[in-house]
Parts: sequence; C-alpha cells; structure tokens
Amino acid sequence: MNCDIIAVGSELLTPYRQDTNSLYLTAQLNQLGVRLSAKTIVGDRREHLVSAVRHALERADIVIVMGGLGPTEDDLTREAVAEALGLRLRRNQEIVAALYARFAARRIQITDNNTKQGDVLEGAEPLANSAGTAPGQWLDTVYGDHRKLVVLMPGPPSELKPMFTEQVLPRLREAIPRRHFASRTLKVAMMGESACDQRIAPIYTRYTDVETTILAHLGDIQLNLIATKPTLEQAQERVDALAGAIEEELDDFVYSANGEPLERIVLNHLELVGATLAVAESCTGGLIAQRLTGIHGSSRSFLGGAVVYSNALKTLFADVPPEMIASEGAVSRDVAAALATGIRNRVGSTLGVGVTGIAGPGGGSDEKPVGLVYIAVSDGTETEVLEKHFAGDRDRIRQYAAQQALDLVRRTLMTRR
Amino acid sequence: MNCDIIAVGSELLTPYRQDTNSLYLTAQLNQLGVRLSAKTIVGDRREHLVSAVRHALERADIVIVMGGLGPTEDDLTREAVAEALGLRLRRNQEIVAALYARFAARRIQITDNNTKQGDVLEGAEPLANSAGTAPGQWLDTVYGDHRKLVVLMPGPPSELKPMFTEQVLPRLREAIPRRHFASRTLKVAMMGESACDQRIAPIYTRYTDVETTILAHLGDIQLNLIATKPTLEQAQERVDALAGAIEEELDDFVYSANGEPLERIVLNHLELVGATLAVAESCTGGLIAQRLTGIHGSSRSFLGGAVVYSNALKTLFADVPPEMIASEGAVSRDVAAALATGIRNRVGSTLGVGVTGIAGPGGGSDEKPVGLVYIAVSDGTETEVLEKHFAGDRDRIRQYAAQQALDLVRRTLMTRR
Repeated sequence: MNCDIIAVGSELLTPYRQDTNSLYLTAQLNQLGVRLSAKTIVGDRREHLVSAVRHALERADIVIVMGGLGPTEDDLTREAVAEALGLRLRRNQEIVAALYARFAARRIQITDNNTKQGDVLEGAEPLANSAGTAPGQWLDTVYGDHRKLVVLMPGPPSELKPMFTEQVLPRLREAIPRRHFASRTLKVAMMGESACDQRIAPIYTRYTDVETTILAHLGDIQLNLIATKPTLEQAQERVDALAGAIEEELDDFVYSANGEPLERIVLNHLELVGATLAVAESCTGGLIAQRLTGIHGSSRSFLGGAVVYSNALKTLFADVPPEMIASEGAVSRDVAAALATGIRNRVGSTLGVGVTGIAGPGGGSDEKPVGLVYIAVSDGTETEVLEKHFAGDRDRIRQYAAQQALDLVRRTLMTRR
Repeated sequence: MNCDIIAVGSELLTPYRQDTNSLYLTAQLNQLGVRLSAKTIVGDRREHLVSAVRHALERADIVIVMGGLGPTEDDLTREAVAEALGLRLRRNQEIVAALYARFAARRIQITDNNTKQGDVLEGAEPLANSAGTAPGQWLDTVYGDHRKLVVLMPGPPSELKPMFTEQVLPRLREAIPRRHFASRTLKVAMMGESACDQRIAPIYTRYTDVETTILAHLGDIQLNLIATKPTLEQAQERVDALAGAIEEELDDFVYSANGEPLERIVLNHLELVGATLAVAESCTGGLIAQRLTGIHGSSRSFLGGAVVYSNALKTLFADVPPEMIASEGAVSRDVAAALATGIRNRVGSTLGVGVTGIAGPGGGSDEKPVGLVYIAVSDGTETEVLEKHFAGDRDRIRQYAAQQALDLVRRTLMTRR
C-alpha cells in the first residue's frame, strides 16, 4: 500500500519553516510496509487544498492531511477535504461540549469560531487529541471505486505524534494487510561515499528483497537496511544476513551495527576497558567535547579538557613548550602530539587527544593550507598523529576534524582490547 | 506571480532525506516578489511525475522541477515534463559533443545512457551546469492559454545553486514584472515567543504592507520583515520604519538588527571594547566555545577555556576550591562564580564565564532539579550569577544554557561601553 502526505500551512511555504512531521510519519508507515507515493505542501488556500487532496486520492491508498484543523479562518482542512470527497460536514455535539468544558475549566470565554473544530466528515470517526484542542479524523471510504483511508491530524508535532501513536496506528494496523518489517542501521566512519558504495554495491544488489539506503554526511555514513516479509523472523533473517556481509567487507570501518552515533560508541569503548579521556582542542574549538557531553552518562569516562584557541592557552592548559610553537608553528605534528600528551598528563586521564589545524577561510599558506589538521591521541606510552587535508568551508573542516578525532580514539581503544 | 516547486527522487520519500533546495529557492524567489503556491515531492515514477507537473501548471505561473536529470533509467524528468506539456524532446548535439569531450578528457569510456542528457524540450533553452554534467532547461511557453515559465534543474545543491544564480536568476529577472524588495532580520535573545509576539503584534499589524514572520528556537527569536514596492527606496523605508518601531519596543532584547548570530554579536562587542573572553563550561560541555570558534576571526577576542566536566577539572583548570564543591555542590551559585573568576584569572582574559547545571535526564533532585543551571560572568571586580530553570530534554537545556551565557556576556559588555 502507498500513502500521500499533505502538509497544510502558508508558513511551510516560506524559506524559514519546513515540514518535518512527514519524516516521522514516513518512518512509522514504512514499518507497516506502507511506502510514500508523494508529499505535498500547500498554503492556507481552499482551492489549492481541495485539488491537492483530489490529486492525492488518485495516487494513493492512504491520504494523511496535517494541519489546518484549528479554529481560525485560515483553518480550512475540514471544509476542503469534505469538498474533495463530496461529503458533508456534521457538527459533533460531544466535541463541542468538550470544548466548552475545556474553556470553562480555564475560565476563558469561548469564541464562536472554536465550535467549527466539532465539524466531522460524514462517516468519519473523530480522533481524540491528548495534547491540544483540535480533534483529528479517521475516514475509511470509497473514492472512484477504490477503498481509501483518509486521516486528518493537527500540524504541531507535539499534537500529531501522540495522536498518531494512540489513535491512528492501531486503526492502520487493523486496516492494512499484515506484513512484518525488520531494519538495521550500520554506521561507517571516515570513508568516502562512493568508495563505500563501490565496495558494498556488489553485496547489497544481491539482496533484492532488502532495501538499502546510503546516507553520507561529513565523514559519517549511515547504511539503512529494511526488509518486509510475511513473518518477522524472515524479515530479520534477511537484514541480518546482509548486515553481516557488509560488516565483513567493510571490517573496522563499521563502528556501529545499531545506528548509534560515533561519540556514544567511543564512550562505550572507554567504559568497556575502564579508560578515561581528556581533549585539548584548538581548531575544533569545543566540538569534540560538545559531542561527547551531549550523551547522557558521558561523565563516567569523559573528564573534560581545554579549548586552547590561543597559543598561550596551549601552554597554560596542556604544557606545550612555547619554543615548540615558535619553531614548528601552532599547526604542526609536534604541537598536536604535545597537546595530546600534555592534556593527558594534566588531567590524569588514560587517553589524551590533541587537535590543531587551519579551519579557514583565512590563515592558510602554501606550506600549510586551509584544511590541514593534525589529530593526535596519546596513551602515555605511544602517541599517534594523523595529518589530514579536509576540503570545504570552516564548518565542514571542523566537523570532519572532530569526526576523525573520535574515530582515532575508537580505533586506539579497539587495538587495546 | 507564484511558483510551484517539484522535487524529484525516491530518496526524498524516505525518513532519512529531505528536500532543502526549496528553502534556498523560496528565499531567492521571494526577493523577486514571487510567492510559493505549493511544493511537491515525488519519487522516480513517470506517471506520478507527469501528473505532478500538470497539477503544478494549473496552479502556478512558474514551475521549477529539481532532480531526475541524470543519465540513469531512474532519471525521468525530461520525458515526464515533455509528456505533461505535450512537447517533443530533441537531442541537442552540442550538449552530447560536450559530454563526449568531458568524458574523453578524463579518459573514461562514455556509456550510451549518458547521451540522453542532451534531450531538450521543444522550444527550451539548455542551461549550462558549471558544477556537473546534466544541463538544466528553461522554457517560456503557453499552457492552457496562460504563459508559463518551466525550469528544470539538477537535484544536488552543489549543482542547483550555481545554476540558479548564473542561469535562472537573470532570465527570471527579465521575465518577471519589476518589483523591488527590501528585508530586515531582527534577532532577539532569551524572550518567549508569545511574550515577544504580544509586545510587537500591535506594531507590526499596523504595517500591513510589510510581511512579518516570527521564528523561535531555543531562546533565540528571528523576526523577518519583508516589503515589496515599486521602488527600492519605498520598500527599504517601510521595513526600516517597522524595524525601528520594534527595536524601540523590545529595547535591549534585540541583539542584532541584521540577522547576525548571537556569538558574532558577542565577538563584535568584545572587539569594540578591546576585551577578551575565556569560558569554563560544565553542563554545556564545549557548546559555548564551539559556537564562538565557529566564527572566523574569533581568535582575536576569544582565547579559549576549559570543559570542566569532572569536579577535579573544575579545580585543576579554574581553581574552584574542592571544599566549595563539597559544601555547596558542583551545581551551585558559588561554583558558577568561582568558575568564572577562576578561568578569568588563569587565562588572563578581560571576562570569564562559568556554567554549571543539571542537563539530565538523570542527576536531578527535589532541591536541584533537572534544568537548573547557574551562569556566571566576571570582569574581575564584579561577578554576576544567573539562576535559571530550563525545561526540556538534555539537548534543549544545554542549548538554552549556552544561549543564556552568550546573552549575559553581551549585556555585560553593553553596560561597560
């Protein structure tokens, strides 16, 4: 079965706002074996809304309309869907009474326009809104000789998500022929997208019954594997088989077989070996620390560190000899190593990381161009330093450098085990 | 005039990818006085694409189709648009020759499917692609008795953006009746969205010819003001008048009148008074440093600091007395102040910032609940400490805390001037 999603709201046609509900809904629908046929975003104009709904009804088995269910004049979804389907609206007095009660409880005067939230499509069931006033609607109907499921839900994610889980999902499960779904997400660090695809395409193309999606972003690749089968076991068996084959091919480039972010994997590895970590960041300026501390419980193995943006701070917090900075330059192999060993000694952590580089856009030279980054990790006996040349703008270079540093820590910990 | 945007690609109908080109295009089109009528996202299915194009032609004066212009079997945009418009495709031999030359220069064997990139709609002009192989197309035509502009562009943002600027924009400027456009973006820190709207709605509703959009995100509000007039002076005069009236009402809550991010404003203020800054971050874990160092040139006034995630590091890098942590707790007014003064003294900066709090989800108590954050700024003589209770999850609390800290630095610097 397939589904069309229509997002209603003029604010979604500005450069500042984007529909994100549809991503949530797509993930949920895919799990039921339902694929998206199209998404449409329309403003608060009745004729556009009517034609968008008609168009969706021609294309899809399920049509979900989000937004435009409030009490204002701009809220036209009920009227437009009724017109598109050729159905009347009936005022549901129970809903109206509940609205009156809700307003009374808050000692607010209800205005007339609110009552239109009680208008329900002929034959539709109202869907309770546990997080707001506007109820949704569920309609199981026939349009042009085909069965169609039409669902109306409010636009705010805080209302849509609970309504979908509590009201829509159980009804969809009953209405849709039962299929079972299994998925796996593999994560790969510091590998080019095309290099990765070249290595795994011969594998995943053999699994025609597993849908494989590759998403690459700044040194991070996410491989999504999805299979839909008559039984859960069959679906799981297929994604696991493909995941295993890909892991075998990519070996230690795969850092997670369950979709976790790299910083969480690094923290897991640290805990596993009972190690702690400290970082001295120059060009990444706090990015590495920020990613690690974004994970709840990170304090068990991440102690902290220093943002040594100025040369003086490299010496003050990580004991980098000023002579070394003067002779080698702040962006150098030696300074990266000194940052890693210095912060480790100061903090008393098991591992120390040092990062120094030129994020640009200025500050580069022929010898040391923008994008040059040195990344070091030290365990007290050994210090490994990587020299990297990252392409792109300031933000990209910083993100790549942070990703590479975390991956270097992961690899160091894997060899220690 | 209005415009429909169609994004083509099955990957855009998964939970993992979203069309973002349309946000860029909307901003560009708005500047020409063109509004969006709708956006449609369709997969690589010819019949869906044909009907989406027809539907868009009925609704809009301009139809922009992005994606599906490559050489593979999935790339169906040319064929589908031709079918929708009832036009034939003609193979443009110049384009094909250029493709052959491009492949030959790279010593790659060209495959037959590549030549279909040379297929051009009857009456259309090919648009050069300065960043890839697939050319775009520009068609100024008549459909159902109305003039329609149809534009085909490749999907990758790195190809679409230069093609839009170099090829499409000049043609649109010529084709669209001339209107002049002015805009201003005001930024407001640490004010609730409804509180802000309540204060400024009486003002902006008087300016019916200026479009005002309010966007709130984690302690940051962006007010976009847009006016379109026959002359640039008239447009500019109206947005400036409204911007001035809003600034007068919101006073020092407005931190930028030109859309700059808060961290850039803080750095500007620091430079203006010749001051430097250092930070000691506990619960924000590097977020503040990372935002500041994301700005090119930040090293002139931001020296760096410490991520003092463990108690030991609070003492090691910011000289917080261990007895104070033992008696008051790591999350306390005194420790925040000690972090600010300590990091300032250590680093020798003009100002020092200290942040400590409970980001959750665990670690809270009745006395010190999740969301409690102390933020301190010290200039050596005075230390101001804010106690804040932020709602939301870990990420939200950390973002709010970082935003509040930057805003406190801004306000401190403003009183010093």
